Amino acid sequence: MALNKSNLTVGDEHSEQIVDNLTRTQIIQYAGASGDYNPLHTDEIFTTKVAGYPTVFAHGMLTMGMTGKMLTNYVGDGRLTKYGVRFVAQVWPGDSLTATATVEAIREEDGVSLVDLAVTTVNQDGTEVIKGSATARIDG
Amino acid sequence: MALNKSNLTVGDEHSEQIVDNLTRTQIIQYAGASGDYNPLHTDEIFTTKVAGYPTVFAHGMLTMGMTGKMLTNYVGDGRLTKYGVRFVAQVWPGDSLTATATVEAIREEDGVSLVDLAVTTVNQDGTEVIKGSATARIDG
Repeated sequence: MALNKSNLTVGDEHSEQIVDNLTRTQIIQYAGASGDYNPLHTDEIFTTKVAGYPTVFAHGMLTMGMTGKMLTNYVGDGRLTKYGVRFVAQVWPGDSLTATATVEAIREEDGVSLVDLAVTTVNQDGTEVIKGSATARIDG
Repeated sequence: MALNKSNLTVGDEHSEQIVDNLTRTQIIQYAGASGDYNPLHTDEIFTTKVAGYPTVFAHGMLTMGMTGKMLTNYVGDGRLTKYGVRFVAQVWPGDSLTATATVEAIREEDGVSLVDLAVTTVNQDGTEVIKGSATARIDG
């Protein structure tokens, strides 16, 4: 059922596991899809020996994209109008992430019904990796 | 050279072509990488015959991700702390996109030097497809 003003309440939460055991292969797939071939995400030798990280890590935008899938699952196709995050902590191969949207406000703007959502994604240790907000159109 | 307080001026612009002739294959690559298999992005028959669109179209988050590559090229690795956009218009196969960051403010927060950027991405017709903002750490 489409989200609408009568079936939404401030405080409602929608949560999904967006990745279970993130693989280096998925990070490489994202490099190929986005064209962002920064070696910190794909080259284990460079990243550990030269850059000094414990391992390659996910593009922040991959975490944001996987979190965006939770948002579009929740609000429906073509309804997300605004989406922004802070990149709070890195995401590593092997991480499992859960993303949650919480209804912050239900409002009208220029005759369009909108929902404002707080967005947070945590890893398997409960550490927040991104924190943000989104706005979507809803039925009146 | 890393961005710092002395080599940045409000009004500075950095612009890149982020995709030339977007292919359905790249959209499918993004579906695979993100796990977002919504058929509006991948299934031409469903999208045109059932959903009534002229063709499949890019995930908004793919456009945002390609624009994010321009941002990390500009500000450097691991410096982007905040990134948000409005999805203004759809992006179709065959589109070529140019993304631009404009320096809006150079400031300090808790002893950290930051740059605030306005972000806009336009297609080959000059139509804006996403519009947003970003913040990145810079050298003092």
